Amino acid sequence: MKNQERPIGIFDSGLGGLTVFKAVRALLPGENLVYFGDTARVPYGTKSAEAVVAFSKEITAFLLEKKIKLLLVACNTASSLALEEIRAVSPVPVLGVIAPGAAEAVAAARPGGRILVTGTSATVASRAYSKALAAAGYKGRVTEKACPLFVPLVEEGWCSKPVAGIVAREYLASFRRSGIDVLILGCTHYPLLKKVIAGVMGPGTRIVDSAKAAADSARRELEARALLNPGRKGRSEFVVSDAPEKFSFLARKLLGIRTGQVLVKRF
Amino acid sequence: MKNQERPIGIFDSGLGGLTVFKAVRALLPGENLVYFGDTARVPYGTKSAEAVVAFSKEITAFLLEKKIKLLLVACNTASSLALEEIRAVSPVPVLGVIAPGAAEAVAAARPGGRILVTGTSATVASRAYSKALAAAGYKGRVTEKACPLFVPLVEEGWCSKPVAGIVAREYLASFRRSGIDVLILGCTHYPLLKKVIAGVMGPGTRIVDSAKAAADSARRELEARALLNPGRKGRSEFVVSDAPEKFSFLARKLLGIRTGQVLVKRF
Repeated sequence: MKNQERPIGIFDSGLGGLTVFKAVRALLPGENLVYFGDTARVPYGTKSAEAVVAFSKEITAFLLEKKIKLLLVACNTASSLALEEIRAVSPVPVLGVIAPGAAEAVAAARPGGRILVTGTSATVASRAYSKALAAAGYKGRVTEKACPLFVPLVEEGWCSKPVAGIVAREYLASFRRSGIDVLILGCTHYPLLKKVIAGVMGPGTRIVDSAKAAADSARRELEARALLNPGRKGRSEFVVSDAPEKFSFLARKLLGIRTGQVLVKRF
Repeated sequence: MKNQERPIGIFDSGLGGLTVFKAVRALLPGENLVYFGDTARVPYGTKSAEAVVAFSKEITAFLLEKKIKLLLVACNTASSLALEEIRAVSPVPVLGVIAPGAAEAVAAARPGGRILVTGTSATVASRAYSKALAAAGYKGRVTEKACPLFVPLVEEGWCSKPVAGIVAREYLASFRRSGIDVLILGCTHYPLLKKVIAGVMGPGTRIVDSAKAAADSARRELEARALLNPGRKGRSEFVVSDAPEKFSFLARKLLGIRTGQVLVKRF
């Protein structure tokens, strides 16, 4: 296998990272992609840094066996808590979703505007976005808010039920009149609740998600290393640690992705 | 260690099984207890039978090393999907929560009344309660309803927020006028939402949970085997697979249990 033809590895705690997969597939149609969803241990966002680091290293080792040329950590929690540990064990470049998302938020914000970061408990506790926004030169005010019920709401398929709006108001209504310029969807599940969240925040707040920005950063990285695949139509492979049929069903229902056969790898 | 002094092992996917722990502690104050919560892999209720069986067998092996005299599976999902597999690898008696809960429901129901079983997706899909109710001689109508958002609601500590009532109505309002005689709380987390659920169902429905019934069945089993501990005040040991401080905090906040130091066992 030529170096260019080696696949890009993408992983998430479950199916949320498929929002990133979809953006990569759209931007880089010629690439071969291997997606891993850790559906036996989902969610990550309520677990400890030690657990998320251990799970992420296991998955990295598995994807390295697939001869990947680039690893994209499509999970905000793993990107927040485990990126350095993954880089330490990976001979191929490793990209997360935090830095690209932060860069896009900075580009969207007015100077001195206020940014609200939403994410899982673990992501928010790590303050990874605040650090990434500062590293990207942002000088305005940043607030982070954990919204742990958003992931189970999405996994239940209740994105457009009234209860989604009620939960979103519970978390976010108090920020409505706080002059939030940009809200970052700091979890790969949250783009599926974008309409509901935008409805609570009102038209003055721009909603940013990192899926598209992460795909852009993957392309830049491959370009810089002359590793872009010149092919026309890349293969997509899906592997999960549990319940492949449910994954396949939800991938199609929530994101319109037809996975074909989903393989199982247990740890 | 004398046989009577050996501990009772109790396990759950997380902290829900503490409702059973509490009932056992109240009924059998002299017993030594070891509680294991699989907080690294919680929840079980959305995962496959294969995964739940594999996790349950690992935990059983761990508790057997603690020289337990009895194993109480304080998780409805594991009791539904893995009880036979656990019994096959355990030299000590193994009790689940389904049969005791079903027996209590049958005792509470009027002849020919209707029983509604609430539980996780996995428990409901297994139809374990329907089978147990039939085995207990119940001839009336039984309906099962999965309520997957109840566990994350409890884990978020939102049991008495308005959103808990809205989610409960979403799942249960259509059963309000269906003459439900008895509603079974078929998940060890659900007793923490008992008030909310009772509010939706109205005064005509009796709410049954299996914690007390499971503790009774443990006592009967130990009595029959002359294994009851005659001591005055048993020890309690708590082990989890992740985030011991969070477990300790929630045990106290939700159930008033002071755990002392919580140990960690990773798989």
